[in-house]
Amino acid sequence: MWAISLIGIGAGNPDHLTLQAIEEMKACEVILIPLKGAAKDDLAQARRAICARVLPDSGPALREFTLPVRDASEPDYQRRVADWHDAIARIWEEELRAALPQGGRAGFLVWGDPSLYDSTLRLAERVAARMPLELRVIPGITAIQAMTAGHAIPLNTVGGPVTITTGRNLRHNGWPEGAESVVVMLDEGGAFTAIDPEEVEIWWSAYAGMAEELRLSGPLAEVSERILTTRAEARSRHGWIMDIYLLRKSR
Amino acid sequence: MWAISLIGIGAGNPDHLTLQAIEEMKACEVILIPLKGAAKDDLAQARRAICARVLPDSGPALREFTLPVRDASEPDYQRRVADWHDAIARIWEEELRAALPQGGRAGFLVWGDPSLYDSTLRLAERVAARMPLELRVIPGITAIQAMTAGHAIPLNTVGGPVTITTGRNLRHNGWPEGAESVVVMLDEGGAFTAIDPEEVEIWWSAYAGMAEELRLSGPLAEVSERILTTRAEARSRHGWIMDIYLLRKSR
Ligand SMILES: C[S@@+](CC[C@H](N)C(=O)[O-])C[C@H]1O[C@@H](n2cnc3c(N)ncnc32)[C@H](O)[C@@H]1O
Ligand SMILES: C[S@@+](CC[C@H](N)C(=O)[O-])C[C@H]1O[C@@H](n2cnc3c(N)ncnc32)[C@H](O)[C@@H]1O
Repeated sequence: MWAISLIGIGAGNPDHLTLQAIEEMKACEVILIPLKGAAKDDLAQARRAICARVLPDSGPALREFTLPVRDASEPDYQRRVADWHDAIARIWEEELRAALPQGGRAGFLVWGDPSLYDSTLRLAERVAARMPLELRVIPGITAIQAMTAGHAIPLNTVGGPVTITTGRNLRHNGWPEGAESVVVMLDEGGAFTAIDPEEVEIWWSAYAGMAEELRLSGPLAEVSERILTTRAEARSRHGWIMDIYLLRKSR
Repeated sequence: MWAISLIGIGAGNPDHLTLQAIEEMKACEVILIPLKGAAKDDLAQARRAICARVLPDSGPALREFTLPVRDASEPDYQRRVADWHDAIARIWEEELRAALPQGGRAGFLVWGDPSLYDSTLRLAERVAARMPLELRVIPGITAIQAMTAGHAIPLNTVGGPVTITTGRNLRHNGWPEGAESVVVMLDEGGAFTAIDPEEVEIWWSAYAGMAEELRLSGPLAEVSERILTTRAEARSRHGWIMDIYLLRKSR
């Protein structure tokens, strides 16, 4: 019998680790670290650093393995993702059986919290359909919490609702109906330019919680340009960027 | 000069504490623990237990103080809350000056994450308008993350939006327009009975992340009654309850 722990490690600051996450890492026989190609190497490096920091010398082995890239030739997007996830699930199964031939617990370190815009949990469910597998999830600090903490702002207005969405949704569907406070994640850049900036405030963070954290905020109409140039500049300097923002209708 | 750290302590499991929260607690000269009357004593007790666990004997003093209750005679709700917050801000100012006559850093331990449905940050801003005060926020595990971890479920559908709202909003406004996944917090009980249960799934957690955690899930039409009775029974047994749920349109 195998078990997988999906362990939220927070949004990039190693001090986001919870005591529970540390205990769970120690309770694993192996920590599996998927490698997704050069662009994402910094993320694997962050995971290695976390392991080096909290695991005892005696304690679970790290095992890295390479993931396939999506097959760009399959024209149907849903199909492409499904094929890709199937391929990954097969590799996970092989890795689990190779690392733990008699069964045991393997840990995966998940960026932020495992529930939020992350495919690891869905992948683990695919693996669970292929072999006897228990799943456990350890919560983590999300990029949303890292962003609001940096700006020292509330996420919601008093008693008001909050919508979390993606850059893609914002671009395609505009301001979410009835929304007051809107968090945008997974934006490839400047989806906020697609909405009417009138009476909208923005709080923007890149590398939230990390040493490189950048923050800008103000009326969207006034700071929009500055965010775009800051983002482009930071992205080319670091080679990658992760950013998130809160939009709020001013009242 | 004074400083306040609002430190997210997670949703009730002391192991939700992050390394950053522990460091920040240690960096304070005093930890202020507001007491809100008998009903909330368990929460003060949880804070004392966290301090006892992570602070050195030499380390910041704990200082408890009593908060006023809202003036039930003021008929206007907004006014009542504003008056109450003003009264609390005055008391915070007195406490800060009494505890740290020469200035220094005071910590407040905030349930879950300070950005989410919590008034501490707004109160701190009121205090900052009364005296020289630096504010710092340390993110924490929210009840949302505690709930999804317990059920081992994603918060969002693939690339889909998430709405976070209150029981009051759900009751008054029904299913949020355009929403797919809806998290409901601050429900005084069973606001989900106000929506059409057809094709809605629910994942419900009480005391999420804590030893007493209760979970129920399934098609809303089927589990609605069982959640109501489980909630009432748990509430009378413990004397208090905190619960949260995710609703999702089945597709
Ligand atoms: C695949 S999602 C993973 C989210 C993660 N599971 C969480 O709980 O935050 C990646 C997106 O999260 C956001 N993100 C993650 N870490 C971030 C950080 N440190 N600063 C800013 N945004 C971040 C960005 O919007 C990014 O596009
Ligand atoms: C005043 S709000 C505070 C939320 C907190 N700041 C957070 O980040 O989770 C209180 C509401 O949070 C939810 N909540 C907090 N802790 C919880 C827990 N351990 N289990 C279930 N719900 C919880 C409930 O919906 C409760 O009504």
